[in-house]
Amino acid sequence: MRYKIQTTKPQQFIDITAKVAEEVKKSNVQDGLAVIFVPHTTAGVTINENADPNVVRDMISALEKTFPVDGEYFHFEGNAHAHIKASLMGSSSTVIIQEGKLLLGTWQGIYFCEFDGPRNREFYVKILRG
Amino acid sequence: MRYKIQTTKPQQFIDITAKVAEEVKKSNVQDGLAVIFVPHTTAGVTINENADPNVVRDMISALEKTFPVDGEYFHFEGNAHAHIKASLMGSSSTVIIQEGKLLLGTWQGIYFCEFDGPRNREFYVKILRG
Amino acid sequence: MRYKIQTTKPQQFIDITAKVAEEVKKSNVQDGLAVIFVPHTTAGVTINENADPNVVRDMISALEKTFPVDGEYFHFEGNAHAHIKASLMGSSSTVIIQEGKLLLGTWQGIYFCEFDGPRNREFYVKILRG
Repeated sequence: MRYKIQTTKPQQFIDITAKVAEEVKKSNVQDGLAVIFVPHTTAGVTINENADPNVVRDMISALEKTFPVDGEYFHFEGNAHAHIKASLMGSSSTVIIQEGKLLLGTWQGIYFCEFDGPRNREFYVKILRG
Repeated sequence: MRYKIQTTKPQQFIDITAKVAEEVKKSNVQDGLAVIFVPHTTAGVTINENADPNVVRDMISALEKTFPVDGEYFHFEGNAHAHIKASLMGSSSTVIIQEGKLLLGTWQGIYFCEFDGPRNREFYVKILRG
Repeated sequence: MRYKIQTTKPQQFIDITAKVAEEVKKSNVQDGLAVIFVPHTTAGVTINENADPNVVRDMISALEKTFPVDGEYFHFEGNAHAHIKASLMGSSSTVIIQEGKLLLGTWQGIYFCEFDGPRNREFYVKILRG
């Protein structure tokens, strides 16, 4: 339920779908919800395209253009941009489980969103039956 | 639980509250959660005002101004802007069910957010008792 | 489950973590989910840093720079910017409950996000066992 993840770049989206799917399988839950939660304030989680890697590259770059690393901020740690981006992506994603599987669209992947890396990070997966 | 929806414009918010409410009623669940999930990567779901249609018009236009269709992107399909907007709105919305009804505010509607239409689309509604 | 909150500024993030934690405690649920829902269309909820108050100050200011109060909008009430910001933060947050406690990161707080205050507001907390 608690997964460790090592990011390798300052801003990076890492596909964690396989780990969430594994957790669903282990739970043996046939119908319910999977909640992915990121316990950090400069990283988030989102669902987006898993085919062309340029999609997440464009997402990072468009967010950076709008909320730049070197913008004018008060927060003393110099990573205010990352806090904003984390809230825009969100700290959790919810996916429906049907017949024992994540009910994702064909092109959907679940991404851990690093905005202030590289770092050792974590995310949680909670499976609810129902 | 699986609903088809036909969008008619490139960017469009469609009120799907009635369909979600119908699903809650059919389920006969008195207390729990309704999760609305969009299985696409260039469409999302959000909750916002259902009274003045200019609100969603302004939302589309403000997102477009910040993340324009014709911005500079790497993704070859030319719809990178739609991927970004989809993640900003999110792929799921969660609403509390109380006394057999969606516990929404007076002015709240649930919107399917098309960012790369017109297309045949789908959304899922999952009802959890508890 | 229904909490009243009085905001005191036009745009303001208020830490509501203690109230959500209290609700979890009262419920006596050891494992499950806490869903926080905001029934307004010009306010939202997000999870972000609870240590340096400049973080939420920077978030409000960065959102305001991108989606300004006095931008060009059609919505007649003059608060279109607040509707956009509310959807960007989202109307709900979901937190995992483990061993009777909110499974939040060390620096995470749950924030009620006012974008069109000051006003009398509400938020709901729903606890699900599972």
